[in-house]
Amino acid sequence: MKVAVVGVGLIGGSVGLAARRSGTMRILGVDRSPSELSRARERGVIDAGYSDLREAAGLADIVLFCTPVDAIAGQVLAAAPACRPGTVLTDVGSVKASVVRPLAGRLPGGVAFVGGHPLAGSEKQGLDYADPELFRKRLVVLTPGETSTDNALAQVREFWESLGAQVRCMTPEAHDQALAITSHLPHLVASALAGVLPPEFADLTAGGFRDTTRIAEADPDLWCAILDGNRGDLLKALEGLLARLAQFRDVVAAGDRQALRELLLAGRERRRLTR
Amino acid sequence: MKVAVVGVGLIGGSVGLAARRSGTMRILGVDRSPSELSRARERGVIDAGYSDLREAAGLADIVLFCTPVDAIAGQVLAAAPACRPGTVLTDVGSVKASVVRPLAGRLPGGVAFVGGHPLAGSEKQGLDYADPELFRKRLVVLTPGETSTDNALAQVREFWESLGAQVRCMTPEAHDQALAITSHLPHLVASALAGVLPPEFADLTAGGFRDTTRIAEADPDLWCAILDGNRGDLLKALEGLLARLAQFRDVVAAGDRQALRELLLAGRERRRLTR
Repeated sequence: MKVAVVGVGLIGGSVGLAARRSGTMRILGVDRSPSELSRARERGVIDAGYSDLREAAGLADIVLFCTPVDAIAGQVLAAAPACRPGTVLTDVGSVKASVVRPLAGRLPGGVAFVGGHPLAGSEKQGLDYADPELFRKRLVVLTPGETSTDNALAQVREFWESLGAQVRCMTPEAHDQALAITSHLPHLVASALAGVLPPEFADLTAGGFRDTTRIAEADPDLWCAILDGNRGDLLKALEGLLARLAQFRDVVAAGDRQALRELLLAGRERRRLTR
Repeated sequence: MKVAVVGVGLIGGSVGLAARRSGTMRILGVDRSPSELSRARERGVIDAGYSDLREAAGLADIVLFCTPVDAIAGQVLAAAPACRPGTVLTDVGSVKASVVRPLAGRLPGGVAFVGGHPLAGSEKQGLDYADPELFRKRLVVLTPGETSTDNALAQVREFWESLGAQVRCMTPEAHDQALAITSHLPHLVASALAGVLPPEFADLTAGGFRDTTRIAEADPDLWCAILDGNRGDLLKALEGLLARLAQFRDVVAAGDRQALRELLLAGRERRRLTR
């Protein structure tokens, strides 16, 4: 089986390393940068490098887009006409409705697209941090819909399961609503918290500050596209958080220790659900 | 040298383990719970256990209070009259002005108090998580003032340095202002973020959410006392964050990708200062 991986960075590189281990998949890396493609070959991430998306897409059984979320739909529409019938296209974008929606009714016959999002990543960027274990026991959300078929969905599911991941299906809208709270809002908050740190207090931070703001080090361009790509759900999630912070402010200002304790207890209970 | 450690939990237990390693200090553990004292002896955290604070204080050269911040000042005032002249009292509380201020002019002659705060900890609680390496290369802020002497300060500094920590002196007020931003605000935010997670989305969280909310699992009672003990500075820090979050909301709502990118870039730059 031939898998074209479009965008050989942290996620694409990790997919390549994990998939090549299986011994049954040949990885065609697609990247605009010839030097990244040579590095990827040297590191054993891909079997062959292509700078032409359509050329690689024409050879592949699965085309996996690991590019910024605001680039994926355009690249899918560019690649699809070059694909053989039966080719399955999928992606790893952190937002789904804005990726999947523009594709409806625009793919050639026999070519399917299944939206996907592995809930795994890092604030680190690039091939150097690629990790074949990145997806092991992690959840991958797939969002099949009018651009996909049962057969295409089964192939994408099998692909991720072969890398050690667990697959769950949701609608693109349900995905985006949940991830607004579980991923996009934390990112915004981590960045805001880091942003209000006066530089002169930087060495008075400890593990608490550093963990809470870790993801603020992620690539601003990637995250700009993600946050902007899920604007409506993110704003709703942010309103919920602002209301909660206002509750904290009011009970602290009032010196209401009992109410403050209740808020802290509620946070601890919900946090425990994520383990 | 005899060091009385009052409160044998995560911090007190870690101090005991680290100090006993040195071979030059005898650790007198003080705790209300006889069963915790036996566990501490069994685990090699203390040399002897005392349920009577004044008895242990009368034997010690240094008395280190590792109890909740709203209990420390009262315990210092209770212990001080039992101390021999030359005894140095200090603490590990996460707030300093509300601990140090009530002690001014109320200690017997020859007994000094030096406020302290090791910037180290964990969301975990209790003796079972005590770690002799907890303070290695970590910063300990000391807040000498009218209750302390140069000699007392030198002893406390030497004590922490012997556990591998680095010491910095600040006023209690400067400490509280900085820690409001670097520790107390992140705690409040982590708890608020965890608190708005709908339970049905818990398994759609990944490393980003979990890191950002890790400290929300800490003991609500301990943190209630800390947040309430630094109310003024915390509210000021929270206002700064709320203003920043409103900026994010406005640029996301406007779809202003350039301004959103600037905010994310600023967060990343500040975060990098903490490494």
